Amino acid sequence: MSERIIITIARQFGSGGRNIGKKLAKALEIPFYDQELIDEGAKESGINPEMVKDLEETPTNSLLYSIATSSFFGAGHFSPTVELPMTDRLFLAQSDVIRKFAAEGSCVIVGRCANYVLRDDEDTVDVFIHRDFEERVNQVSKIYDLNLKKAEETVKKIDKRRSNYYSYYSDKKWGQADNYDLCLNSGALGEDSCVDIIKSFIEKRNIRKKARG
Amino acid sequence: MSERIIITIARQFGSGGRNIGKKLAKALEIPFYDQELIDEGAKESGINPEMVKDLEETPTNSLLYSIATSSFFGAGHFSPTVELPMTDRLFLAQSDVIRKFAAEGSCVIVGRCANYVLRDDEDTVDVFIHRDFEERVNQVSKIYDLNLKKAEETVKKIDKRRSNYYSYYSDKKWGQADNYDLCLNSGALGEDSCVDIIKSFIEKRNIRKKARG
Repeated sequence: MSERIIITIARQFGSGGRNIGKKLAKALEIPFYDQELIDEGAKESGINPEMVKDLEETPTNSLLYSIATSSFFGAGHFSPTVELPMTDRLFLAQSDVIRKFAAEGSCVIVGRCANYVLRDDEDTVDVFIHRDFEERVNQVSKIYDLNLKKAEETVKKIDKRRSNYYSYYSDKKWGQADNYDLCLNSGALGEDSCVDIIKSFIEKRNIRKKARG
Repeated sequence: MSERIIITIARQFGSGGRNIGKKLAKALEIPFYDQELIDEGAKESGINPEMVKDLEETPTNSLLYSIATSSFFGAGHFSPTVELPMTDRLFLAQSDVIRKFAAEGSCVIVGRCANYVLRDDEDTVDVFIHRDFEERVNQVSKIYDLNLKKAEETVKKIDKRRSNYYSYYSDKKWGQADNYDLCLNSGALGEDSCVDIIKSFIEKRNIRKKARG
C-alpha cells in the first residue's frame, strides 16, 4: 500500500473479527497488532498487564473522572502517574504503544479502543465486526470446546467487559455505528468476504480523500 | 436481480441515506419506497398520517407497554384498535404497508423501522448510514438553505425523533451496529461508493446464502 492507512478493528467476541484483521493485514501486506502485542509493548513502560487482571472490574465512572479527581495534569495532556489507578495507567501505556505502532506506518490494530486512541489520526479506517449472538455462541463452543451454556456465559461476559472498557475510556458507546466507519455482520458474509469489503472500502475512501485534496 | 432481496435503510438526518437508497434501487432495477409512499399506503387503512403530527412526542415507554395495557389482543398478533393511541395505530398500519411492499418482491425501503418490521424475513439486508455531525449540519444548511445554528438544531431534533421512534417501537437502540448487517460512514466514501459497497455486500451475501443452502 502506498498510502499510509491504519485500520482499527473492534469486534464482538466470537464474531471472527480478530481473524478478519489478520487476513486483512496479510492481504494488504502490512503489520497486524493485537491485544497481546499491545500488552507486550506496555510492559516496557514498567506496567505488567498480567498484574492488572480485573479489567472487567473497571469502575463505572469514566477515565475523565479519574483524571479530574487525581492531582496531576500534564501540560495539554495527562501523564500516567501513581495518582491514577493501575488499570488507568495501563490504559495510558497501551495507548502510547498503539500510537507508536501507528506512527511506524500502515497497519491493522485489533482491540484496546484503538479507534478512540487514534481519533485524531486522519489515516484511520475504523471497523466494527459483529454477528448474531446464537452464531457466536456456536462458534465459541466449537473453538474452545465448551458446552453451549458455558459458551453463552463466556460470550456475554467478554462482550460486557469490552463494552464497559470502551465506554469507561472513551465515554462513548461500544458498537454504536457512528463510532466507526464501517460495521459488518460477519455471519452474513463470512470472514473472507468481510476482508474484501474492508479492502474495497479503503480503496474507495482513498480515492475520495485524494479527490478532496 | 434474480434473487429476492429487500434492502432496508435507516439513516441519520443529513447523511444522504435516502439518496443512497434511491441510487441503489435504480442500480438494481428494483422499486424504491420511502416514508412518503409508506404513509400514502397507510392512508388506505383509514389513518391519515398527516393527522398524527406529533410523532416526536411519542411517550418514552415502548409499544409493548401500550399493547400490554390496552384491552385487545388478536390471536397470535395484535390488531390496531381504538384502544391504542393514534401514533401506535399508525405504526401498525405502516408496518402492514411495509410487509405488503416486501411481499411483492425485491425493493429498497427507507425509514419507518423497516428492518425491525421485517425482522423475520430472511431476504433482508439491513443498512444504516451515518456521517459526522458537522458534515451533516453543513449538508442540511446547504440543501435547506438554513443558517448553521438552525441546521444544527434541525439535525439534532430529527435524529432524536428517529431514535425515539425506533426504540419505542423496536425496544432496540437506533444506530446500534448489531441491529443492521452493514453500517457505513457516507462522509468517508460519498454516496456512489456507498451504493457500490452495498451492492458488493449483497452479492457476497447471496453467494454465502446459496453455499449454505
